[in-house]
Amino acid sequence: MKGQALALNELDVIDRFLRPLAGEGAFGLFDDAARLTPSPGTELVLTTDMIAAGIHFLPDDPPFTIAQKALRVNISDLAAKGADPVGYLMSLALSPDLDSGWLEAFCLGLAADQAAFGIDLLGGDTISIRQGPVVSITAIGAVPAGGMVHRFGGRPGDVLFVSGAIGAARAGLALLTGERGPWDSIPAGARDGLVARYRVPEPRLGLAEAVRSHASAAMDVSDGLVGDCDKMVASTGCSARLDGDRVPVDAALAGLAEDDRVFAALVSGGDDYEILAAVPPDAVPAFVAAAGEAGIAVSRIGALVEGAGPVTIERNGRILDLRARAYVHGGQGERHV
Amino acid sequence: MKGQALALNELDVIDRFLRPLAGEGAFGLFDDAARLTPSPGTELVLTTDMIAAGIHFLPDDPPFTIAQKALRVNISDLAAKGADPVGYLMSLALSPDLDSGWLEAFCLGLAADQAAFGIDLLGGDTISIRQGPVVSITAIGAVPAGGMVHRFGGRPGDVLFVSGAIGAARAGLALLTGERGPWDSIPAGARDGLVARYRVPEPRLGLAEAVRSHASAAMDVSDGLVGDCDKMVASTGCSARLDGDRVPVDAALAGLAEDDRVFAALVSGGDDYEILAAVPPDAVPAFVAAAGEAGIAVSRIGALVEGAGPVTIERNGRILDLRARAYVHGGQGERHV
Repeated sequence: MKGQALALNELDVIDRFLRPLAGEGAFGLFDDAARLTPSPGTELVLTTDMIAAGIHFLPDDPPFTIAQKALRVNISDLAAKGADPVGYLMSLALSPDLDSGWLEAFCLGLAADQAAFGIDLLGGDTISIRQGPVVSITAIGAVPAGGMVHRFGGRPGDVLFVSGAIGAARAGLALLTGERGPWDSIPAGARDGLVARYRVPEPRLGLAEAVRSHASAAMDVSDGLVGDCDKMVASTGCSARLDGDRVPVDAALAGLAEDDRVFAALVSGGDDYEILAAVPPDAVPAFVAAAGEAGIAVSRIGALVEGAGPVTIERNGRILDLRARAYVHGGQGERHV
Repeated sequence: MKGQALALNELDVIDRFLRPLAGEGAFGLFDDAARLTPSPGTELVLTTDMIAAGIHFLPDDPPFTIAQKALRVNISDLAAKGADPVGYLMSLALSPDLDSGWLEAFCLGLAADQAAFGIDLLGGDTISIRQGPVVSITAIGAVPAGGMVHRFGGRPGDVLFVSGAIGAARAGLALLTGERGPWDSIPAGARDGLVARYRVPEPRLGLAEAVRSHASAAMDVSDGLVGDCDKMVASTGCSARLDGDRVPVDAALAGLAEDDRVFAALVSGGDDYEILAAVPPDAVPAFVAAAGEAGIAVSRIGALVEGAGPVTIERNGRILDLRARAYVHGGQGERHV
């Protein structure tokens, strides 16, 4: 940490850093609460995610990208529910040795993403703790009444799609932490891109309308594709079969992922923030067309099936053996609800 | 900590502890987000407050009361805005050495207060951090359209009221931390009551309708009566005069508070969670009557005045000398917005 130590002054933090981020209904943060007037015919979708240093980001990550990650993991949830972002509230726990440059860069990250995703700060709270930062964001989105897409709701026969590609964030984290293993052979030129995917997720907001219009169920993939798919089927009372050969792996990892062990690590690694969607067979063409119009790649990776219990994933004609099915942030367990 | 170490399992925490708290729109926490359909003609009021061990509560405080405090500091904000509670989202950062009995008692505290205040859990996130607990709650309330009461909006001449009594929480904290000073002379029989006021605030939800109907401005008193009154006038562009002889001090502290230094500590101490309201002169009788009907004591303690700058507080004919005007949680600064 360099520059002036923050020594968080209650008025300074608001005046210098947070007030410029405040949107309509936040009253310039001159009030104790925000007002939100939903448009007639809409329902609100509410989600909250907390991220902490050493668990969801590395203490030395750039504050600009920590802010982006804090906001984007929430926007990713909204996108998967078919919702458009409206606003967010943020609680920020900072350690007193943090310098003001850190907070300035953090708020620049928020400002950039507020503009990129059309979302405003509605309110917040800033506290001092010994070991920070911890960032808790509650994001609010809107859907047309009845339009929210749930994690449950899929039926046997529905086709499973995933957006984008899987694994980049898992590899990026391995590179950042110096984890030994197959990651050693990732070429230098590919490393920055993988690290960037760990630090700055890409919420698939462009897919929200396609999900809302055509999916029977959807969720974002934050704790590993297979483990999150387990959660989807558990909430639905069915199972799923995934075709490993169709799971889209990040291009920089395609060679490495030919090894089943690497592939297994990628499909059970965290922080992809892609959308997993179940689509009824007769809606598949429309879903694929809508995703295409939105400019977001989607891959057909399997289907929901009758039965119960964890999903199976086949590769090269064999059921893949997965030691871990889901990624556990910080190694202690974590749960998005 | 005793009993079984928590070692937070993602499914267990939800299944055993949080799912029973989920309200309508939370889908039994089987989804990634909650749905909220505001009643026609209402607006939502949103507030967020984060509390941390060692800053807003003591690590050894009973988990039942920590939960109550986390929820009540937010409900207090809703009450001061004239809003009725609807629901809340909670992010919980726990250290892995916490035992399951702690979390069980914490959730019992939430359940008790959900019933007491008519508010349901809508969603949440649980993470593991090295030093916890940190609890961040975003609470949502509803007001009839246009009914939200702001911190700003008062005018010179408006009468200032405060609910209940001031100082009990400040004294309770001093007793809990073994702070030396005048607190030593508090009789044993009064101590538990003061400690309880620090641990378990009493949000003045019963006053919400009176505030909504008659106040020009209101806020809850969380960081000291004088300092919070400073914030009210700063947001309004006026000043205020408080009559120290009329400020209601907790009955157990009445004798001690005859000393100006003790009185000064009480009116600048934190965690009162009373409501400070500005009421136009012609609305005073109706406000007092409405508070009486609600069964909540309110005291007329001063008035907003022309001018700018910090409020003055007179006692025994002299302007009180305040070294600190506001309470700084954890000694590092804190801000509710």
